[in-house]
Amino acid sequence: MARIAVDLMGGDKAPKAIEKGVLQAVETFEDVEILAFGTKGSYSGNHPRVTFIEVTEKIESDDDPVRSVRKKKDSSLVRAVKAVADGEADAIVSAGNTGALMSAGLFVVKRIKGIERPAITSIIPTTAGQGMMLLDMGANSENKPNHLLQFAQMATVYMENIEGRKNPSVGLINNGSEEIKGTELTKETYQLLKNSNLNFAGYFETREILSGTVDIAVTDGFTGNVVLKTIEGTSMALMSELKKIMLRNPINKGAALVLKKDLAGLKDMLDYRQFGGAPLMGLQGNVIKAHGSSDETAIVNAVKQARIMVNSQTIEKIKELIGETNE
Amino acid sequence: MARIAVDLMGGDKAPKAIEKGVLQAVETFEDVEILAFGTKGSYSGNHPRVTFIEVTEKIESDDDPVRSVRKKKDSSLVRAVKAVADGEADAIVSAGNTGALMSAGLFVVKRIKGIERPAITSIIPTTAGQGMMLLDMGANSENKPNHLLQFAQMATVYMENIEGRKNPSVGLINNGSEEIKGTELTKETYQLLKNSNLNFAGYFETREILSGTVDIAVTDGFTGNVVLKTIEGTSMALMSELKKIMLRNPINKGAALVLKKDLAGLKDMLDYRQFGGAPLMGLQGNVIKAHGSSDETAIVNAVKQARIMVNSQTIEKIKELIGETNE
Repeated sequence: MARIAVDLMGGDKAPKAIEKGVLQAVETFEDVEILAFGTKGSYSGNHPRVTFIEVTEKIESDDDPVRSVRKKKDSSLVRAVKAVADGEADAIVSAGNTGALMSAGLFVVKRIKGIERPAITSIIPTTAGQGMMLLDMGANSENKPNHLLQFAQMATVYMENIEGRKNPSVGLINNGSEEIKGTELTKETYQLLKNSNLNFAGYFETREILSGTVDIAVTDGFTGNVVLKTIEGTSMALMSELKKIMLRNPINKGAALVLKKDLAGLKDMLDYRQFGGAPLMGLQGNVIKAHGSSDETAIVNAVKQARIMVNSQTIEKIKELIGETNE
Repeated sequence: MARIAVDLMGGDKAPKAIEKGVLQAVETFEDVEILAFGTKGSYSGNHPRVTFIEVTEKIESDDDPVRSVRKKKDSSLVRAVKAVADGEADAIVSAGNTGALMSAGLFVVKRIKGIERPAITSIIPTTAGQGMMLLDMGANSENKPNHLLQFAQMATVYMENIEGRKNPSVGLINNGSEEIKGTELTKETYQLLKNSNLNFAGYFETREILSGTVDIAVTDGFTGNVVLKTIEGTSMALMSELKKIMLRNPINKGAALVLKKDLAGLKDMLDYRQFGGAPLMGLQGNVIKAHGSSDETAIVNAVKQARIMVNSQTIEKIKELIGETNE
């Protein structure tokens, strides 16, 4: 039985959509138990595998991450993270303030020994292959070369052990593929990766971001966050233009009807809600960030992801393998 | 008559596609004269408004930018840039090594007095409004806050004078919209922009990259380059998935036939070849970078862009107005 703590108060659609997601998740996964943390009235369900824990505070999306975690000790986010640190839950899912979740992860759950910085990561869809892991997507704003090396190491462990990809290839996001291109950070990281025992594929240009040419793309948290949002922005714009075309006139509408099902598949491919949550990698517990706009489907998928991470003992494997690598 | 120097040897499809583009451009624009620089055999046309100038060297795409410009003095790129510095041409178009074009621009054409760093810029398409100017797209790898302020100033002059947009809004690309988010660079730049007389719209998240919510998005050259390539990569992946859907079976093929013309319009919207060239802003002459994969259409559009910049005296206006702003 995987015990998953969920922050009912985090995200644009909280608490209603989160509550619905929680109830749908326990219906979907029979081996999941949920500890749902929220303020009074945020949960009105009645399910034997959901325990509601009432708290008195809530962290807002624009709260200062570090300060809010320190001050709002009885917030749903902090209490849910604490449940993992205290061994009451095996994982925590929150769609709330990313910085606060990161801070709570760092202060309460704490880093894996030897890991300098955690990273937010996700597997993004690709036209070929089975998706690519992108990290860091925003746990950090600025990073050093060694952080990026460790991101690549953690992602390699994840991809080998959870996704079953042997010797996954690692690309380093850069503003050009030639060795002379780049910033101080990318140039130094290039050397570290080249001299590591990872399957380093060299610089990676984001023109290939959805092509699946590498298994893992590593970058600093600022760039990763901007890349992720650029993919979202570009996809949304294209899908909205496509929709306009389909509705332009009766003839187009007819053609659109024929293609409807297949186009829905394309939309799904791009739908962040299908990707599940984004694990904060490098912590001693499973901390999973769901998208800020999460609806119930997104929450169900984040719980699904948490469940897989718990059952596959990802963190134990990262501890073992990175420990070895860095010795 | 706008006199435009073209580097026949630059770009993945050089020299054939560039030669074709040159010939098509002079057919299209009757007020354009072209000085075409290339090695022996790179031009076999015969047009009264094209002058072929034979050179002995070529800068490769992976040549070191600074060294190649210093050593290959008789390369098509350096000679074409020199034609602008010497007053023989009003603008230069090259699809070659971006770093080398930048270096040649800096060493030979030289910066506008007071501008610390030039920037590569382009107007990218948006679903609302008339496109957004993105800079720097890769003239620099690392930038300081004052560089970004000047990018915003130059882009404002350009948008007001060439595009006729009064008081264009400026967004600063960041990993979040809250003032507490960001890197040292974005935080310091935020303060500079806030205290400037520009129409500063605050932090800009790339989820809005094709929405047209601001007129200008400013960022460092590394990030801008990665953003541009992420847009390209995402668009290419989506269009290729869409194509797969359209060809999946005879029924879909029928529907696709109906939508063909409208979908071609969507493809055109995303086609970098339609955007024209990317001006290197901040130099004392018009230096225009065409996309590395430029075909003849891209070259025609880059020449078109060069022609507009020459005729509208953009550089004179930037000199005048930024000079004033910085006094």
